[in-house]
Amino acid sequence: MTLTLKFFVGLGLITLALGAAVPKRAPVEDEESMHPHLPRSARARTSSEEATQAYWHAASKQLLREKLSHVRNTNRAKNIILFLGDGMGLATLAAARSYIGGEEQKLSFEEFPFTGLSKVYSVDKIVPDSACTSTSYLCGVKANYGTIGVNGHVLRGDCQAMANASNHVFSLGKWAMDSGKAAGLVTTTRVTHASPSGVYAHTADREWENNALLEEGCGEQAEGLQDIAMQLIYGEVGSRLKVMLGGGKRNFYDPEFYDKGRRTDGRNLVEEFEALDAGNTFVKTQKKLLKVNATETGRLLGLFSSGHMHYHVEQLADPENNEPTLEEMTEKAIEVLETEEEGYFLFVEGGKIDISHHDTMARIALDETAELSKAVKRAREITNPEDTLIVVTSDHSHTFSVAGYQPRGSDIFGSAKANGLDNKPYLPLSYANGKSFDYYYNTETHQREDPVVLATGDFDQLFPAMVPLESETHGGEDVAVFASGPWAHLFTGVYEQNTIPHMMAFAACVGDGLTACQTATN
Amino acid sequence: MTLTLKFFVGLGLITLALGAAVPKRAPVEDEESMHPHLPRSARARTSSEEATQAYWHAASKQLLREKLSHVRNTNRAKNIILFLGDGMGLATLAAARSYIGGEEQKLSFEEFPFTGLSKVYSVDKIVPDSACTSTSYLCGVKANYGTIGVNGHVLRGDCQAMANASNHVFSLGKWAMDSGKAAGLVTTTRVTHASPSGVYAHTADREWENNALLEEGCGEQAEGLQDIAMQLIYGEVGSRLKVMLGGGKRNFYDPEFYDKGRRTDGRNLVEEFEALDAGNTFVKTQKKLLKVNATETGRLLGLFSSGHMHYHVEQLADPENNEPTLEEMTEKAIEVLETEEEGYFLFVEGGKIDISHHDTMARIALDETAELSKAVKRAREITNPEDTLIVVTSDHSHTFSVAGYQPRGSDIFGSAKANGLDNKPYLPLSYANGKSFDYYYNTETHQREDPVVLATGDFDQLFPAMVPLESETHGGEDVAVFASGPWAHLFTGVYEQNTIPHMMAFAACVGDGLTACQTATN
Repeated sequence: MTLTLKFFVGLGLITLALGAAVPKRAPVEDEESMHPHLPRSARARTSSEEATQAYWHAASKQLLREKLSHVRNTNRAKNIILFLGDGMGLATLAAARSYIGGEEQKLSFEEFPFTGLSKVYSVDKIVPDSACTSTSYLCGVKANYGTIGVNGHVLRGDCQAMANASNHVFSLGKWAMDSGKAAGLVTTTRVTHASPSGVYAHTADREWENNALLEEGCGEQAEGLQDIAMQLIYGEVGSRLKVMLGGGKRNFYDPEFYDKGRRTDGRNLVEEFEALDAGNTFVKTQKKLLKVNATETGRLLGLFSSGHMHYHVEQLADPENNEPTLEEMTEKAIEVLETEEEGYFLFVEGGKIDISHHDTMARIALDETAELSKAVKRAREITNPEDTLIVVTSDHSHTFSVAGYQPRGSDIFGSAKANGLDNKPYLPLSYANGKSFDYYYNTETHQREDPVVLATGDFDQLFPAMVPLESETHGGEDVAVFASGPWAHLFTGVYEQNTIPHMMAFAACVGDGLTACQTATN
Repeated sequence: MTLTLKFFVGLGLITLALGAAVPKRAPVEDEESMHPHLPRSARARTSSEEATQAYWHAASKQLLREKLSHVRNTNRAKNIILFLGDGMGLATLAAARSYIGGEEQKLSFEEFPFTGLSKVYSVDKIVPDSACTSTSYLCGVKANYGTIGVNGHVLRGDCQAMANASNHVFSLGKWAMDSGKAAGLVTTTRVTHASPSGVYAHTADREWENNALLEEGCGEQAEGLQDIAMQLIYGEVGSRLKVMLGGGKRNFYDPEFYDKGRRTDGRNLVEEFEALDAGNTFVKTQKKLLKVNATETGRLLGLFSSGHMHYHVEQLADPENNEPTLEEMTEKAIEVLETEEEGYFLFVEGGKIDISHHDTMARIALDETAELSKAVKRAREITNPEDTLIVVTSDHSHTFSVAGYQPRGSDIFGSAKANGLDNKPYLPLSYANGKSFDYYYNTETHQREDPVVLATGDFDQLFPAMVPLESETHGGEDVAVFASGPWAHLFTGVYEQNTIPHMMAFAACVGDGLTACQTATN
């Protein structure tokens, strides 16, 4: 403590007439510490080509040619697909490239010709959650933290304000269906979780996924309100969705019908769904999903796990796995929706990037990002860029960062070349906060542990965090938006996140805002 | 080594039966810890407007109208200006908005219509430094960490490879001058520092800014090589630059002529510069700079401090300050360059964003970002968007993050609402590593200190870091690119950082790559 005080006194302060303290003049300019002389790299993956100017000049010329040959697509978008990487900030994307093969790689959607930056703050918080952002990028309206499909008059947990229909806001899914298109959703989380709920639900609290939780939250005021699962089956929007694929079975059943069921109202919403219409189809396994005949199916509900679906690496490791991948769900959803003559809106969420980041499990977060990349790639392959707009974005970032200065081609999960001042290695990948604090901090010696010794190399290895929190928090910086297809050129620039559905609606001529069709006739 | 092997086995998903280590099934899905119920916000700055859907719908409509009314500018760019915010990642931009007035704000260049993402890795490192990235965004070629204006055949410190002219690569500044345009540079760092050196220098080590350092690095091999300051005055490119403004006087003088001089060759490069041509002008104070008559000036060299220029907040606090602001330097540089009939290339660096981040001084980093924003604003005001392309970007990010979940309008430097598991508050702004570790970690009790108690609120307050390092490291994620003016629409999408000068050269019809003029005639 004396040391730190001494250090601080050493920095010194000048008091302004105005009273603002500023650093003393004559700053230390220690180049060696700022930009250390590092060991020369093995440059394992660095082709000798990269050492020449010819390589970089040719690559730039190639990219310029591609850009110049690009023709603006101002077709009306018959189909619009929104992919969401939940919690997928720029550091996640960059590290995912190293994970899939090297820094020079691109994720599938990074090949899209247009990119923008989305400002994510909510009405009440500087850093938002997946509920209010879902309202933003799906319903076109910013909302309060924890709320879905309602405007900023509804604070989290306000049952009365939620009951007031004038506070409800509607998604691009409804705008599309009101114009005669079909709509669907796909997620690796519970279909009643925050992100997908934005398509169809209105709730003052993201946690009210079943009647028990709603009643716990609202007490007597729950009367007349619907939990999120009920809204998916019976809501004005949910009841019209053509495809709903993901996890979360437990919110649709009373334990009487399914032992993990969490409803307490004696209902079996899956059976009710099937009874609603002869065309309604329910599937609960990968096998059954893949066998669904798109042309013979009415509405399709797929619930593949009790809670969230498992991580892709868990699915791979489980010989009895019967859950589809995100790519498989996406492909089937598109297959079913492509039967619609008027086109469709589809929402696809890679939802477990966020969940693994909350647990500081960076390996899994990168693997789930790679899975999202595959799903987008497939979607772009099986749809026509002339009539299908695909937008890929995220709801918010995490406190995840990629520190310096590993050699190219090194294991991104390995340690940095230099040690800390405590003479211990450190990992380039880490978080500002999270549960891993306990793991990397020795409570007996009260010192930072050597992360290289602790690193298991397993998928569930935690990565270091500075502040001990049960769950790592989101990050507040902008997230990227990637667009391909009709009117994709609108998606560049810096804009508020809630602009996204308005731009998609413009391209598809749905909703009551500006549309490409109006513009054409005006 | 066993660990890495183990990891790769785990990755070899074919060997799943071997029991690749994956998380246990039945993941905890603790919504409350992931998305805690936070105290309701004061929403101090949240206008009631933001609570309505009408507000967000109208704002989106307005943005769409702006986008639709935008006409692609395919004029030949007479002038091209590249602004660099050194170390300015997305988290810095988002936090800077809160600093200047609120999350809903935009920095001046965030109003630019086109944005892209720049991949920053170098030939040898996953996370680069400002030297190799300068080679990338100025010379169009990726290089090795620590090197400037040379290709990847030159490793840091390789004097022999540096001597080989076939390894030299040239900047957009030279391309522009070879086409009859003028060129200049402005920086808040030493004019011989890594970023500005990319305009004119070729060196195997960024530190060889004066003859003493070059000789220390190369010994006998220094014979025939030029230090960076010499290259600015006598180099093929440096000797033709019209405007050079920044800090770094010490690298131009032997102590015989200036007591802080660091040269050991008895030279006075400033006097030599003035003797080279009657039109050559040297200024060393803000006053003198502001008095420079643009039409009567030949080449203009301004050196306003011995080392880097002082932080903007230091300048403000010093009653005897005689350094210009970045905005003032930028305006004067443009004024001088606008006298050139054939147009110009100008490089402007806000270089101390990086330096304050290295010291974990987040307040200063945000203030320097705001200063860059002012300089860009002024540049856009005094140039014509019809003939002047302005590009704003960064060389790399830092490990800086904005954690959750403060109420809108709160002090971005204040503490998060929730406490850590150790029952102490934490700051939303922090770094993965850096010297502040010692400050926030009590070496007697071996516990995290309460950062709220330690927070001084002064500009030089350090922000927490997890790994103790003398200097915080750079971050590896993509940085943003913002463009306005002729061919600005090329700058969207994800691309390698070295593509930037090629796209600017295309717009201005300079260099030997593709140009808009060729395309027009082809």
